[in-house]
Amino acid sequence: MLEFEILKKHRYSDARLGRITTSHGAIETPAFMPVGTQGTVKAMTPEDLIASGSEIILGNTYHLYLRPGHELIKSLGGLHRFMNWPRPILTDSGGFQVFSLNALARVTEEGVKFKSHLDGSMHFFSPERAMAVQQALGSDIMMTLDEPAPHDADHATALKSMNLSTRWARRCRAVHSPGDQALFGIVQGGMFEDLRTQHVQEIGDFGFEGYAIGGLSVGEEKATLLRIARHTAPLLPAERPRYLMGVGTPGDLLALSSMGIDMFDCVMPSRNARNGSLFTSEGKVNIRNARFRDDPQPLDVHCPCPVCRNYSRAYLRHLFLADEILGLHLNTLHNITFYQHWMANIRQAIREDKPFDFIGVESFRLEKDGG
Amino acid sequence: MLEFEILKKHRYSDARLGRITTSHGAIETPAFMPVGTQGTVKAMTPEDLIASGSEIILGNTYHLYLRPGHELIKSLGGLHRFMNWPRPILTDSGGFQVFSLNALARVTEEGVKFKSHLDGSMHFFSPERAMAVQQALGSDIMMTLDEPAPHDADHATALKSMNLSTRWARRCRAVHSPGDQALFGIVQGGMFEDLRTQHVQEIGDFGFEGYAIGGLSVGEEKATLLRIARHTAPLLPAERPRYLMGVGTPGDLLALSSMGIDMFDCVMPSRNARNGSLFTSEGKVNIRNARFRDDPQPLDVHCPCPVCRNYSRAYLRHLFLADEILGLHLNTLHNITFYQHWMANIRQAIREDKPFDFIGVESFRLEKDGG
Repeated sequence: MLEFEILKKHRYSDARLGRITTSHGAIETPAFMPVGTQGTVKAMTPEDLIASGSEIILGNTYHLYLRPGHELIKSLGGLHRFMNWPRPILTDSGGFQVFSLNALARVTEEGVKFKSHLDGSMHFFSPERAMAVQQALGSDIMMTLDEPAPHDADHATALKSMNLSTRWARRCRAVHSPGDQALFGIVQGGMFEDLRTQHVQEIGDFGFEGYAIGGLSVGEEKATLLRIARHTAPLLPAERPRYLMGVGTPGDLLALSSMGIDMFDCVMPSRNARNGSLFTSEGKVNIRNARFRDDPQPLDVHCPCPVCRNYSRAYLRHLFLADEILGLHLNTLHNITFYQHWMANIRQAIREDKPFDFIGVESFRLEKDGG
Repeated sequence: MLEFEILKKHRYSDARLGRITTSHGAIETPAFMPVGTQGTVKAMTPEDLIASGSEIILGNTYHLYLRPGHELIKSLGGLHRFMNWPRPILTDSGGFQVFSLNALARVTEEGVKFKSHLDGSMHFFSPERAMAVQQALGSDIMMTLDEPAPHDADHATALKSMNLSTRWARRCRAVHSPGDQALFGIVQGGMFEDLRTQHVQEIGDFGFEGYAIGGLSVGEEKATLLRIARHTAPLLPAERPRYLMGVGTPGDLLALSSMGIDMFDCVMPSRNARNGSLFTSEGKVNIRNARFRDDPQPLDVHCPCPVCRNYSRAYLRHLFLADEILGLHLNTLHNITFYQHWMANIRQAIREDKPFDFIGVESFRLEKDGG
């Protein structure tokens, strides 16, 4: 079960304020989904995630399939119960990790054969298998299995992957039984506008509950990502949620929201946090920096998170340099809260028909880092 | 400022129910102090510690002196504010780490010269210096600098260390100005009853606000530890808190409480947690064990902690095997809560004049592991 309402359109952009309703609760859009790779958003409890303002998280099917195994998770009541996360979960199909963690993954019409990065054992994902695994996990939103083309794929290669992705999307749709779990399709077509247009035409009438733009943030220039997103977003069914996978910086989320994208996921806030790279309304800072040595100030006076209310930059720097687990936790809590606060500002600007000019926007609009 | 009231004596043992009052709040005794080595109890937020029932933590002067430095902490408002811990803190003198982390530490009458384990730089701690560092940290309870004898020291060696410790204790007392920070003396004397008796006579009238039994849990047999503690505890001033340093298992804490010890600290619950070794009312378990693979039960049905309320053994095992930070966090939260719940049971038994026969006691009474 998945419902999507558009509550308001933005006066100053193509952004939409919306609400997705699932059987595990509602999600205000545009929404950012923290990534919970192995059945946990790294260094966060579910309570932390709720406090951060997160309403939905992403689970990685590839990782959970390999360890602890989807059947095990199913036998323990599904992923929500396993990880004690009561709110919505979106699972990817596993395809992206199959390809990105397996240089030698072998694709046939039937599916993709790959080696476990954990123990080298051989595995096979077909569209049907990817669906079955996600059904066992019990996510609220499942994704179709697709074959993303490399960012530098030529037109013929991108076309071939796209056509395979269409056939796989049809097979996923065929085995999808309507029920609690919604299914989103993924638009491919590489960095080529004509292919993106063609792919939307091919899968747009498969009746997916939502549509994702895939195959971006895979190594291309930031300008290319924005060009393809800007081209593709308005082609997607307007009455369905639009999801851009694997992006990005706060500036990216703002730019892409303004194009009418409703959902995002990215490891950036959590991974950066564990490297000491923290988001603030004045841009990214590295907490290792010697200038923070005796700095009693909070990381970001505009941030509502408990880290910025209770700890100094000097303390965060100390924890990081001393390799303390608490440092990884506090950094992650801050970054994810920063992202969610940023999304809340985007939603508020849409609701109140204000331009996207809130605190910190200049710092991130200029950012080059898309990784 | 430190006050100690004995609220009740136990009918079935020498245990005392007490209350220590400091300017950062009160502590019910017998009390267990989690160890916050580097300005954080590893993997715990202050909120977690409070939820666990912890009323006081221990800070390691040696580590904080080296990194980030006591002067830095002082400039940021002291250790309580630095780490956002509003409740009482006890700091050790730094001596124990100086000796245990520096095989080549050089002791003279004046003090001890040692190398930083971080960068090899040379440092010097005298009794006066150890006091100054603890004053900068702003702990509620400071400890005198002493020289612990090795667990296998002969009588002459133990006597020599003890006599030096007496002179150092006198020097600490001389520079201690009454105020917010209390000072505890430490009884040494190795594994020799006559020396322990003699040392209590020597420092017992220095007027310390509390007395610790030091030089135990340094490699001796469990029976030796209990023998020396049982001999020494009743010699200590009855109207002052008695603190046994660096101990131990839940069974140890029960046995030592029954001898009239009021305070304990140990890295065991937190360190074990990070190794997957978890305390339950049926004894210690290792969460890696394959029998937990698909076990939907909580770790310990008798434990009040959020981990036991919300997560399965299978999930904890998964997190541990997947090297997830959340696993270290949940394991630590469980173990520390388990310890605090254990202490609460001890206090309740004293209050209600019941024998020490609560759930799990048999599992730990038999335990051999003193580390």
